[in-house]
Amino acid sequence: MIAEIIAIGSELLTPFRQDTNSLFLTERLNELGVQVAFKGVVGDNRDHLVSVTRIALSRSDIVIFMGGLGPTEDDLTREAVAEAMRLPLKRNPDIVADLYARFAARRIKMTENNVKQADVITGAAVLKNNNGSAPGQWLEGEYEGKQKIVILLPGPPVELKPMFVEQCLDRLRVKVPQQFIATRVLKIALMPESECDARCAPIYKEHNAVQTTILAGAGDVQLHLKASADTMEEAQQLVDDLAEELEDELDDRVYSTKGESLEQIVGYYLQMRGATLAVAESCTGGLLSERITSVPGSSRYFLGGAIVYANDLKTSFSDVPPMLIAEHGAVSKEVALALAEGIRKRCNATLGVGVTGIAGPTGGTPEKPVGLVYIAVADGKKPEVVERKLPGDRDRIRFYASQQALDMVRRKMI
Amino acid sequence: MIAEIIAIGSELLTPFRQDTNSLFLTERLNELGVQVAFKGVVGDNRDHLVSVTRIALSRSDIVIFMGGLGPTEDDLTREAVAEAMRLPLKRNPDIVADLYARFAARRIKMTENNVKQADVITGAAVLKNNNGSAPGQWLEGEYEGKQKIVILLPGPPVELKPMFVEQCLDRLRVKVPQQFIATRVLKIALMPESECDARCAPIYKEHNAVQTTILAGAGDVQLHLKASADTMEEAQQLVDDLAEELEDELDDRVYSTKGESLEQIVGYYLQMRGATLAVAESCTGGLLSERITSVPGSSRYFLGGAIVYANDLKTSFSDVPPMLIAEHGAVSKEVALALAEGIRKRCNATLGVGVTGIAGPTGGTPEKPVGLVYIAVADGKKPEVVERKLPGDRDRIRFYASQQALDMVRRKMI
Repeated sequence: MIAEIIAIGSELLTPFRQDTNSLFLTERLNELGVQVAFKGVVGDNRDHLVSVTRIALSRSDIVIFMGGLGPTEDDLTREAVAEAMRLPLKRNPDIVADLYARFAARRIKMTENNVKQADVITGAAVLKNNNGSAPGQWLEGEYEGKQKIVILLPGPPVELKPMFVEQCLDRLRVKVPQQFIATRVLKIALMPESECDARCAPIYKEHNAVQTTILAGAGDVQLHLKASADTMEEAQQLVDDLAEELEDELDDRVYSTKGESLEQIVGYYLQMRGATLAVAESCTGGLLSERITSVPGSSRYFLGGAIVYANDLKTSFSDVPPMLIAEHGAVSKEVALALAEGIRKRCNATLGVGVTGIAGPTGGTPEKPVGLVYIAVADGKKPEVVERKLPGDRDRIRFYASQQALDMVRRKMI
Repeated sequence: MIAEIIAIGSELLTPFRQDTNSLFLTERLNELGVQVAFKGVVGDNRDHLVSVTRIALSRSDIVIFMGGLGPTEDDLTREAVAEAMRLPLKRNPDIVADLYARFAARRIKMTENNVKQADVITGAAVLKNNNGSAPGQWLEGEYEGKQKIVILLPGPPVELKPMFVEQCLDRLRVKVPQQFIATRVLKIALMPESECDARCAPIYKEHNAVQTTILAGAGDVQLHLKASADTMEEAQQLVDDLAEELEDELDDRVYSTKGESLEQIVGYYLQMRGATLAVAESCTGGLLSERITSVPGSSRYFLGGAIVYANDLKTSFSDVPPMLIAEHGAVSKEVALALAEGIRKRCNATLGVGVTGIAGPTGGTPEKPVGLVYIAVADGKKPEVVERKLPGDRDRIRFYASQQALDMVRRKMI
């Protein structure tokens, strides 16, 4: 069975927006053993939509539409798919009631245009939207004499993802031939992709049955392993064997072996050790705290900290002596260490982190160029500090610095 | 004239890789007045490629292919386009010579498969590749009785971009009718898309010459306006007139009229007023600070603040009386106000922001459910606080809360 994914929305044909949902859907489909053969983007134009739908139905078994289910005049997916399949739309009174209730709960008057979201293609099952107003639709039907599965999903990822996982995966599973696919993801912080590949390629080339893909982002390399077999045990064994050899090679550089993020792993370790964390951020400006607190339940180990952009806040929130700043400059090893130890004591935490640097684009000097960052971790015993000269733009420098800080905390806790 | 962009390569149908070249090409095409009506991704499969090419030629005036021009068996773009257009391929001896020279210069023996890169569709002009081995092709030809422009470009951005800019733009410019295109983007925080559309549609429908697109994200709605005319002044006038009417309707809800982000606008206003800002974040956990400091130069108006996840940090960093927390709970109007005023005084800032809430997924109670957030702004005179019951998951709740905080600061500064 082959699948086709169609993103709908004129904004996706501008230079400013890009479909990313299809990556998520592809991953879920691949896990079921379904390959995606075509992806497309089409604007809010009814003729184009109808024609694209017909082409998709003529060549693919599963056609997934994303977007165009909202209340505006531009939202034409329901109408176009119904026309392409020659099936009438019917207004569903339950959805209309839900829409009124939804608006009433938020004390907002519902405008009339919203009711079109209750139009359902004849024969389709309604997919409830727990995170937005537009429901999705699941339709099994015939096109040119062949059975097709047609899925209409809302465009916003926060609505699409849970809807697909909770209401489509089980429905799909019984429709596709049974296959067992096991995957593993090894993640490595702060290693260049070329170094990682040079060390890993001789190993994964010996494991032909496992498909290995290397993906590199800012300060992060991921090894994706995938194998299919007649039983789950067999598939799992294939990826596990390779993962073990790769872990031996990369040793403690691998921070995660099951896809967890670095901030999740840091959280696991802190909880496991019964430790708490506080941070004092200058150049990362909140990014480090934001990443740590993006993990649900992080309040169990993260106490908080300070954003010490202004120099006097470095003193008032983290007890950095003004003399130290005057002597070494705010961007220095000494100040990073003082920030880490100061915030640790202030917050009464097990570990304190201090970050200070020059994120750019301005503010660099010949001695202290843009990209120079000091990251320190204090534990009350043996503080550590590293100097990094980071490449890239402001965003990348800030991300790298936060990555370095998280990895230092992880190593302290291993 | 409408254009279609087709990315070729099975790796682009995996969960890990995405075409980004099309955003670049779209921007260049739009500048010439050419709209992109369809985008597609297809794998390294000859039948699929031929069929996709025929569909594209039947509906678009300009068809741009990216990728599949290399030396491997998977590289099928030349063959497929030639077959779809029923034009034979001819091996170009100059390219063959170039290929041999290229390999010789690098002291590498050229493998035989490389010569297929010298196969040119009959009638096509060769586009020299200064950054790789595979040349591109430019073809003007007839398909189903209509004139078409077909462009074959290599996939790697470092090869594609200069080839398109240096060898295709001028060729295209003389083929498309001269047009001038003006654009404007209005951004509105915290208004539901449906409300924005209901208020704006009657206005923009009166301006047929301007193409209006509404884009909605979490807590953010954007109105993209675009008009083309025979002179730039005329085009600009068209979008400016509509923008003015829309601004009148939406009044101070519009935070940006030239595409700036909310955090940029907040920065402009703070600088303009000579004001400074400090924040005390609980549930947003650093996100608000991170957004503010993502703007280069933000150290001119942003002093810093505190991440007060633990309750005793609310006291020690923002002077929230422990009694107040005991009486009203950490998530309360009173504590939000105390955080805002406390951090303002501590940092000696013009404005202080306090955010406290329940981002979830756990921690909610019947009285204080997940999504309940209080956001306060203190200016030493008339503090303000709002209560919001935000929908969605942890990420969305945190983003909304930061959006609300930024918009409140903006309104204080208008």
